[in-house]
Amino acid sequence: MKCLQRLTTTHLLRRVLENQHKFIQLLQQQQVRSCSTGRLQEAIKPEDEDYPQLKTIDPSTSYYPTSKPFKHAPEVGDQFTHSQLAVRLAAPHQLHPKPDADDLVFGKHFTDHMLKIAYHRRLGGWQKPEIMPMENLVLHPAAKVFHYAVELFEGMKAYRGVDGRIRIFRPEMNMARMNASAQRSGLPTFEGDEFIKCMSRLVTIDQEWVPHTEAASLYLRPTLIGIEPTLGVASSDSALLYTILSPVGGYFTAGATSMGVSLLADPRYTRAWPGGVGDRKMGSNYAPTIQIQKEATAQGLQQVLWLYGEDHQVTEVGTMNFFMLMVNEQGERELITPPLNGLILPGITRDSILHLARDWKQFKVTERTITMFEVKKALYENRILEMFGAGTACVVSPIERIYYMGENLMIPTLDHDEPVWKQICTTLTDIQYGKIKHPWGVTID
Amino acid sequence: MKCLQRLTTTHLLRRVLENQHKFIQLLQQQQVRSCSTGRLQEAIKPEDEDYPQLKTIDPSTSYYPTSKPFKHAPEVGDQFTHSQLAVRLAAPHQLHPKPDADDLVFGKHFTDHMLKIAYHRRLGGWQKPEIMPMENLVLHPAAKVFHYAVELFEGMKAYRGVDGRIRIFRPEMNMARMNASAQRSGLPTFEGDEFIKCMSRLVTIDQEWVPHTEAASLYLRPTLIGIEPTLGVASSDSALLYTILSPVGGYFTAGATSMGVSLLADPRYTRAWPGGVGDRKMGSNYAPTIQIQKEATAQGLQQVLWLYGEDHQVTEVGTMNFFMLMVNEQGERELITPPLNGLILPGITRDSILHLARDWKQFKVTERTITMFEVKKALYENRILEMFGAGTACVVSPIERIYYMGENLMIPTLDHDEPVWKQICTTLTDIQYGKIKHPWGVTID
Repeated sequence: MKCLQRLTTTHLLRRVLENQHKFIQLLQQQQVRSCSTGRLQEAIKPEDEDYPQLKTIDPSTSYYPTSKPFKHAPEVGDQFTHSQLAVRLAAPHQLHPKPDADDLVFGKHFTDHMLKIAYHRRLGGWQKPEIMPMENLVLHPAAKVFHYAVELFEGMKAYRGVDGRIRIFRPEMNMARMNASAQRSGLPTFEGDEFIKCMSRLVTIDQEWVPHTEAASLYLRPTLIGIEPTLGVASSDSALLYTILSPVGGYFTAGATSMGVSLLADPRYTRAWPGGVGDRKMGSNYAPTIQIQKEATAQGLQQVLWLYGEDHQVTEVGTMNFFMLMVNEQGERELITPPLNGLILPGITRDSILHLARDWKQFKVTERTITMFEVKKALYENRILEMFGAGTACVVSPIERIYYMGENLMIPTLDHDEPVWKQICTTLTDIQYGKIKHPWGVTID
Repeated sequence: MKCLQRLTTTHLLRRVLENQHKFIQLLQQQQVRSCSTGRLQEAIKPEDEDYPQLKTIDPSTSYYPTSKPFKHAPEVGDQFTHSQLAVRLAAPHQLHPKPDADDLVFGKHFTDHMLKIAYHRRLGGWQKPEIMPMENLVLHPAAKVFHYAVELFEGMKAYRGVDGRIRIFRPEMNMARMNASAQRSGLPTFEGDEFIKCMSRLVTIDQEWVPHTEAASLYLRPTLIGIEPTLGVASSDSALLYTILSPVGGYFTAGATSMGVSLLADPRYTRAWPGGVGDRKMGSNYAPTIQIQKEATAQGLQQVLWLYGEDHQVTEVGTMNFFMLMVNEQGERELITPPLNGLILPGITRDSILHLARDWKQFKVTERTITMFEVKKALYENRILEMFGAGTACVVSPIERIYYMGENLMIPTLDHDEPVWKQICTTLTDIQYGKIKHPWGVTID
């Protein structure tokens, strides 16, 4: 009897979970919120009500980059628009149960729907956008993506704010970078604003997959691949732009924001080089790093600190931009990150940190080259305060130790009471989760 | 009446073409050869009969590299073997008509069958090899190959010899390089000999796709991709090793062996760099070159001459290794190619040319760095004789002109009566098409 009861409850719960995206309106009318994390929340507040404002940021500051309309090469042809979007919803039996927010591994679980937009030059250019149940891609084995890495991607996140609204963060920056990557890869460019609208619709459809917690978010992975089935090394006349969604917790398995990461800095390995594509988010930049990451792991270290050149310039850390807070030779506090010299991915978190820190005026903020010689000297003179990586997947990741040329350099990032990395992390997540009203946090509903 | 007759003939021809791979034995018994090029040929000679020996090569020379058994990492798990191979032949209606050998564009047409071998760490390692009708790949949109370029390939060719037998060229070299690429990409390694046997079976099944002409061949494209559907930048626990076949003519549309190629040498662009993967045949090396190749085309030049470093070292040309024949400062004729310093793909044609040229003892043969300064100086002093690219796709491709820093450097490669590049090309193709008996030419039947 008890067994039967449990079965019925499980069955009922499963039905609720599977169908919850269709209940949204009903739930909103009832001022009740479905919840995949077990965290009970108050009724949704209407959008104009007050919600906690933890910090004040001068709204007059212009945070948007001057967004010039993107200039497409004439041969790209037709552009797609959000108004053409066709939606085919998953049937109830196609819906997947949502994982518990505490069990999320980065990029392992995916939502019920995806967005696809095909490009065929012979058909005039971009085709109509389609949202459909998550499905496998069916591609010719000669598709260029399998042979010549004709592929690029972006990483974005949708956050469920404390006001119940879902936000994405500076999406126009991702679109600008994605188009820059497309141009460099022989792939067609597209209207970023239209793509954002299509992705927003996708997130709205799968909105119950946006975790109901500030410890997690829904990761968006817009991807563009070349699918022309010919073996010449050349531009792809057919392409597929798609977006899949994955609920994610922290990027690193060990809670990296409470524990610092340890790094392998080996000058024998280089991530990017002048005249290459280190400043584009192309697949090509990642495969060559996997073996080095394995070597770091084998040495008991968590990530790779990428060096460049004979003077061992610090470029990036893992898949993140690098920041260092130090007392400079003039005795001033200075936050430094390597400049956008072609070797560095123009990170959106990086750009945001620079904006915030320059606004704060608490310390000097500089984009310049950092060498390991400088790091070692400053460390010896006790002038290094903090080091951290920054990126969409991890937000901010404090660095504790660098293994460099046979020596362990201990970085005192975690030894301070009110560290800058934490201040940055808090401000960024406050914007992302709607605790601070800010133009960077774009609501999608 | 005439129309009906034509229809019947077309229909009959189509049936013959579609089924010809099943007629092989019959045809051989009848001493008649099916022919997709229209070139009439004599009956097939039994293998021990004489056939033209254009050149003599000392058979005592050891051309094989000392082939140590490949050492796999313990975590790779089970290996596949050729004896496990399962074959599912295409039904007659699935067979494609073969293109005319004169119309072949590189990598555009594919044969009727393909070879697939899956790898799943959770299932113990490599699974059983399968030959099946050519089909699309069905992959999860999060498969690592789409995001992080977890992919690598090889280029090989099957040649129909003057003795009617089909040969591949030094396949063990491709297998060694493919495993080296796999190790560098976080992909599982495999037994090269077993894979060669599987591919040979595939070529045998599709043998009528090996063009009946010395002007063309059947290109083999072994490919290894990471298909694990998770978004972490890491080794792929699932992979797919597959081979597709494509009948090919010359690589370049314009007959590049009769006309020299023109090159863009722009020091702003770099193909590979120390600490990178320029010496592995990974997809990552190709996507970043597409935009530069487009720029060369826009400037009216056919290929890119890749330079490296402040001294503008010549590294590769297009997707080929680079060779230069010059009169050196000591007045000797010298054939030079850049050394395998990590920036250079260890080409199998490159290695073969070095072997042949050292055997010939007609000139000095050197692997060393060549700078554009040296090229310009030697050109000014009339000491440059020939330049050419070398690779599987093109064999040998003579260079006629280099556009470098605003200047057209005219290379006199085509101005000689008996050029070395042609001697090399003839010897290699003589081995490949069975006119010279040589251990490099491996018969597959």
